[in-house]
Amino acid sequence: MSILTVGSVAYDDIITPFAKRDRALGGSATYFALAAHHFTKINLVAVIGDDFSYADEELLRHKGIDLQGLEKVSGKCFYWKGEYLANWNDRISHDTQLNVFEHFEPKIPDSYRESNFLFLGNIHPSLQQSVLNQVTQPRWVALDTMNLWIKETRSALLQTLKSVDVLLVNDSEAMMLSGEYNLYDAAKTIAKMGPKTLCIKKGEHGALLIRGNEIFTAPAYPLCRVVDPTGAGDAFAGGFLGYLASAESDNFDTLKKAVIYGSVMGSFTVESFSVDRIAALTDGDLEKRYNEFVDMTHFDS
Amino acid sequence: MSILTVGSVAYDDIITPFAKRDRALGGSATYFALAAHHFTKINLVAVIGDDFSYADEELLRHKGIDLQGLEKVSGKCFYWKGEYLANWNDRISHDTQLNVFEHFEPKIPDSYRESNFLFLGNIHPSLQQSVLNQVTQPRWVALDTMNLWIKETRSALLQTLKSVDVLLVNDSEAMMLSGEYNLYDAAKTIAKMGPKTLCIKKGEHGALLIRGNEIFTAPAYPLCRVVDPTGAGDAFAGGFLGYLASAESDNFDTLKKAVIYGSVMGSFTVESFSVDRIAALTDGDLEKRYNEFVDMTHFDS
Repeated sequence: MSILTVGSVAYDDIITPFAKRDRALGGSATYFALAAHHFTKINLVAVIGDDFSYADEELLRHKGIDLQGLEKVSGKCFYWKGEYLANWNDRISHDTQLNVFEHFEPKIPDSYRESNFLFLGNIHPSLQQSVLNQVTQPRWVALDTMNLWIKETRSALLQTLKSVDVLLVNDSEAMMLSGEYNLYDAAKTIAKMGPKTLCIKKGEHGALLIRGNEIFTAPAYPLCRVVDPTGAGDAFAGGFLGYLASAESDNFDTLKKAVIYGSVMGSFTVESFSVDRIAALTDGDLEKRYNEFVDMTHFDS
Repeated sequence: MSILTVGSVAYDDIITPFAKRDRALGGSATYFALAAHHFTKINLVAVIGDDFSYADEELLRHKGIDLQGLEKVSGKCFYWKGEYLANWNDRISHDTQLNVFEHFEPKIPDSYRESNFLFLGNIHPSLQQSVLNQVTQPRWVALDTMNLWIKETRSALLQTLKSVDVLLVNDSEAMMLSGEYNLYDAAKTIAKMGPKTLCIKKGEHGALLIRGNEIFTAPAYPLCRVVDPTGAGDAFAGGFLGYLASAESDNFDTLKKAVIYGSVMGSFTVESFSVDRIAALTDGDLEKRYNEFVDMTHFDS
């Protein structure tokens, strides 16, 4: 099994209540790939500028992530400058520069076309659609999106959602997309749009999975010392979809474990700035925390 | 086993984003008792004014709650007027009138003195201490408090905490009391004050239990349609302590199940205004939702 992911590979300037970091490696595809490569082969599709550092490219390559689809063009990488406020939940975007992403047209290498799993990271839905169109009947498609696309490009998003199996969003995005206040009702409405499975990412409050009448709810890993929340949602998606791809199943019990692997990946990501922690993660670290997660959530029924 | 609880029995005027209710039966001891009586005998200690309705007194009596400690004096019941804002998390207190509670001196009936479990509801710590002083070596003492008492009556609270086994508070209260930002560190600091077990009530986000190196985290029941959040924390305490008293054990596996019963009680409470839902609850409703909770949280490790 292999996962094709499309999204951003970026540089971020990050300000937190306690520290700051400039030119931190970031982007949805970066975080996703660094989480998901623990489980299966990753085919990455993104665009970078000529300011992308050799060291960062080597970091990805060294993990075995396939970079044939990482297009390098003249100009600068996608750039975001963000600040997290004292409660960690609110963040201010001080600057967003699309740069090389502005005219990005994803081109899927031939060797990627038969990827079984697709992760369409949080980018314009027409770019997500373009990737879908170039792939031969993927077995499972997961999509992330945000309030901007739900509001500004709704019809394109609805078109893309028709081919999607699982939608990964936060609760306010699910409410905005569905027009439903209750997440159970939201899942029913979204299922009619395409995605039969809704995965609500709640950050420090865990995750909720709904497919038809099946529901699973999980808390977050509780011991995190948060340094930088950037990328936690994309790493969650990487753990989630990575585990699914490795398990070669989409029964609900498998989906539940996928949520836990997603939460574990998110919990590592926030422990350091940028990709520092997740890039240093071993399979042993991953299994150890998964088992801790089991201990801290299981109870005798 | 029996539980002695002291707290308020009150009338609330409640405003929510969708509706309002005047003179709703409320108070921490009311919600606690209506949740906990499903598990064990409840000895209630509180004060009411002569405006307390016969119907409300009968409601409590009809549940088998012992009302020998419910003192009736001339004047009006404790009164609170509160409004919940659109996100349900923020609430405004428009009015608080202590009324008969202002000069309340808890008097414990002789038949209550050997209660095995104590729940000291969210009232002035010197009143909590007064109850403690009148009871013969209880097996387990649980205490709820709030930012007001932590800030304004810290030394009295610290004195009372010395005799407490489990502290039930929300995360910001735990941080304020301990001076620690991380809840794991907060639990260590609070353990030195007395309570070896810390139970963090997170409302719609579940609950966290810490005792020494043992940790349990649980999401909330996810399907709630919130009508009125008032009393959910007290009902949580009622389910939590009620189950503990009935299980006659405080090993960590028992505490975990107690958290789930607490969450289940909280989830029922918010479904209707005031005590409407929790007062109508059957043992069958309780077990059904407990089992649903198991289904929605368990995963194969």
